[in-house]
Amino acid sequence: MPIPPEIFLLPPNSTATLQQQVQQIVAEAIVSGRCLPGEKMPSSRKLAEHLGVARITVTVSYTELVADEYLVARPRSGYYVADTAPTRPRFDSPAPVDRRGVDWAAKLTRPVQQRGDILRPPNWSDYRFPFIYGQSDPALFDHANWRACALRAVRKRDFDSLAQDRYQHDDPMLVEFILRHILPRRGIHATPDQILITMGGQNALWMIAQLLLADGQIAIVENPCFPGLRRIFDQMGYVGRSIDVDHQGLPPDLIPPEAQLVFTTPSHHAPTNVTMPLERRIEMLARAARHDFLIVEDDYEFEMSFRSRPSPALKSLDQDGRVIYLGSFSKSIFPGLRLGYVVGDQTLIEEMRKLRTVVLRHPPSHIQRTTAYFLSLGHYDAQVARMARHYGQRRAIMEEGIRDHGLTREQGEVLGGSSFWMRAPPGVDTTQLALDLRRDSVLIEPGSAFFARRAPDRSHYRIAYSSIAAPRIAEGMALLAGAIDRAAEGAGAAR
Amino acid sequence: MPIPPEIFLLPPNSTATLQQQVQQIVAEAIVSGRCLPGEKMPSSRKLAEHLGVARITVTVSYTELVADEYLVARPRSGYYVADTAPTRPRFDSPAPVDRRGVDWAAKLTRPVQQRGDILRPPNWSDYRFPFIYGQSDPALFDHANWRACALRAVRKRDFDSLAQDRYQHDDPMLVEFILRHILPRRGIHATPDQILITMGGQNALWMIAQLLLADGQIAIVENPCFPGLRRIFDQMGYVGRSIDVDHQGLPPDLIPPEAQLVFTTPSHHAPTNVTMPLERRIEMLARAARHDFLIVEDDYEFEMSFRSRPSPALKSLDQDGRVIYLGSFSKSIFPGLRLGYVVGDQTLIEEMRKLRTVVLRHPPSHIQRTTAYFLSLGHYDAQVARMARHYGQRRAIMEEGIRDHGLTREQGEVLGGSSFWMRAPPGVDTTQLALDLRRDSVLIEPGSAFFARRAPDRSHYRIAYSSIAAPRIAEGMALLAGAIDRAAEGAGAAR
Repeated sequence: MPIPPEIFLLPPNSTATLQQQVQQIVAEAIVSGRCLPGEKMPSSRKLAEHLGVARITVTVSYTELVADEYLVARPRSGYYVADTAPTRPRFDSPAPVDRRGVDWAAKLTRPVQQRGDILRPPNWSDYRFPFIYGQSDPALFDHANWRACALRAVRKRDFDSLAQDRYQHDDPMLVEFILRHILPRRGIHATPDQILITMGGQNALWMIAQLLLADGQIAIVENPCFPGLRRIFDQMGYVGRSIDVDHQGLPPDLIPPEAQLVFTTPSHHAPTNVTMPLERRIEMLARAARHDFLIVEDDYEFEMSFRSRPSPALKSLDQDGRVIYLGSFSKSIFPGLRLGYVVGDQTLIEEMRKLRTVVLRHPPSHIQRTTAYFLSLGHYDAQVARMARHYGQRRAIMEEGIRDHGLTREQGEVLGGSSFWMRAPPGVDTTQLALDLRRDSVLIEPGSAFFARRAPDRSHYRIAYSSIAAPRIAEGMALLAGAIDRAAEGAGAAR
Repeated sequence: MPIPPEIFLLPPNSTATLQQQVQQIVAEAIVSGRCLPGEKMPSSRKLAEHLGVARITVTVSYTELVADEYLVARPRSGYYVADTAPTRPRFDSPAPVDRRGVDWAAKLTRPVQQRGDILRPPNWSDYRFPFIYGQSDPALFDHANWRACALRAVRKRDFDSLAQDRYQHDDPMLVEFILRHILPRRGIHATPDQILITMGGQNALWMIAQLLLADGQIAIVENPCFPGLRRIFDQMGYVGRSIDVDHQGLPPDLIPPEAQLVFTTPSHHAPTNVTMPLERRIEMLARAARHDFLIVEDDYEFEMSFRSRPSPALKSLDQDGRVIYLGSFSKSIFPGLRLGYVVGDQTLIEEMRKLRTVVLRHPPSHIQRTTAYFLSLGHYDAQVARMARHYGQRRAIMEEGIRDHGLTREQGEVLGGSSFWMRAPPGVDTTQLALDLRRDSVLIEPGSAFFARRAPDRSHYRIAYSSIAAPRIAEGMALLAGAIDRAAEGAGAAR
């Protein structure tokens, strides 16, 4: 299609002739890369009409631009941007901006604090041995059925309602399926007014923090913990209190009586993968009732419990509605989907719904419906089963590598998941190790990002198997072990 | 497919026998509506395996449940939920919750303030004469090509990258198209680090307010103005300063020198539809530079300028980067899409990107790519042209109705858009009028929601033609005029 005439606008206060102005704006569009070599120019009639100038003005301008080699004329077809047109690299030409008036540092009254903890390079998939966490493996995903569901969700019948602004509402089909088929597996029974669809787990945590945290309150986070949660606290300018987890997760007796909100991952602690036993869960709930604190249960990966049956969620034992339960489809479907859900007391859910409406209205309807179909047609169950099978195989190879190379795993866990939490020999800085390993095309995640700032820990690291194919694991593990050996040697310590 | 065994979980501390427990949990699942009549039960082998009980325990439980008419056995097939099974209405059975400990009013430290201004009932499309604003008309939308683009975006090649967590990044294809083909039509030239994709215009306004507003600062909003913006202020507990618009939009000379941030809709003021002339735009920018305030230009509907060429955006005249420009696809594609964009100084955009990452990571990749295809294949231009044609026809019929029935339009506007801003006769309360009209299956939007609270205005109303088919307009206008006549008579005033 030709370039639309609408992209050309005459400058408001020019003293040049109209013909000069037309020439200038076309040349400028070409030089700046907005019009690319080979693209067809609008007809002189259309451009003249759009600019409100005589057609002859445009024709003469075009002729001049041909002479200047910006354009070429093709008989009986029209004008095209010349292959020889002068160009600068596309987008490499910000207009020279005079920042005389704007002091942005002063304008940004609430800048977002951010720690520099990048766990993965954006081009992680170019690495041969990506032991990184949280991305999906295209080789395991049921693309054909996802595509069929996406298509189904865009049928005329579905589409006409999905195209509308739903204001504060979610897709009732997705809500019903989660209530009837997913939550019961976690022992949770809820009603539609006790659930809200979110833009993934991050979004759920953020909304909860917004509504329930205030200055002077005590919020507990696990140490180590999911860095995305720490970023939420940072953004709010709020300091949480970190409590070290042990081999059974967060110890309830270390939660101070004055705590108001506790963030925890009982099924599968992030990142150490330990599971909180039933007795401790009951103790946690009793303590919560006694001291009147609320609990946020992030059940981000329960679907990946392929090594043993998951225990019922903390929420399933919650009698008085003080547990706020978070689920996510990022691990079981894919993270680019950006969908999750929160289950909680209806007073809270109603408030979260109001907040979500102000912030973004509602998660896009098409992806909600596609997911609803994927779940209801049984593809989700099959998908989770397939992932579990492959993860199990990969995990076994990883365990072999860990054993063979004498690497150190932190206390074991039993559920499955998609990663190992590891400890390097004394003196080895895993942040440096991770950077060094990139040269061998190996990606691991240094542990420091997971720890509270007051207690930096550079000896841990995480290796995941959700994105690395089984045949590559052994070679990657050997490279990892070699790098650790060299680093330990450098640190003068034995592994 | 059979009901997955995973939805059944044994209670943690039961004193009942295992067989009693199995019977109870199955019966409970049926009664509560989680298992529906006709659904197939998991095989006794699978359920036994999952629950960790002997198979015979499940078999005996099933037999008992058949006797109790919860289940039926079908030879050589298995057990099914009986059609005669006792049920309660689905979801009508929240577990009896003992709220002994949780005082939610005290827990919600930052409740979301919300005005009760509902402009439209959720089932608006069931009304015969929906003169409501902001929803799309399925009859005008190019559903076939949207579907083709959605399908294209879910091809294996696109999908494998779209499935990933992109952290803070947008779809480069969508960004490039907006930069090269949409912004130039508004006279705006920007680089990729000066643009951010948002979850629609609401999300963009919210992020800007988060980053640039602080207590003690003066932010200006137009009066009347978009209610979604007022809700953002309410949620933040922030009070904006309202300035009345005149027939040329927001008057720059009324902006106090101490203002720090000005929210405005110069192309097409919401809701009055007036356009700010070029001279006033230049004056606005000069004043912004003089007093060092920033301007948020919400260009929410520029695509619908079918009656005359849109003037270049305020942003196109902005020399020192103090205009923050907002675009949205809600009006030109459809609102359920939830996509828009912000163009601004790269310092601000970087900060917004950080905030977005904390709040929700990124807008879902599939919808970004679908939109990129819809734009780049020319369907968007065709769509906008088709909407403009139909809106033009509908508008003409509306104008006729307004004239014939002697209704009062506020000062005219020239661009097009999709609505009229109207004034009722003295004494007529348009909020009551809107409610009364629902009985005639007519929906209009009362004006009060648009005005600052300190200056309630109940005499204005908005009627839109984006969701009502041309053949229904005349009848709807007659009903509207009739209701206004009756209301005016009741108020003792003449129309």
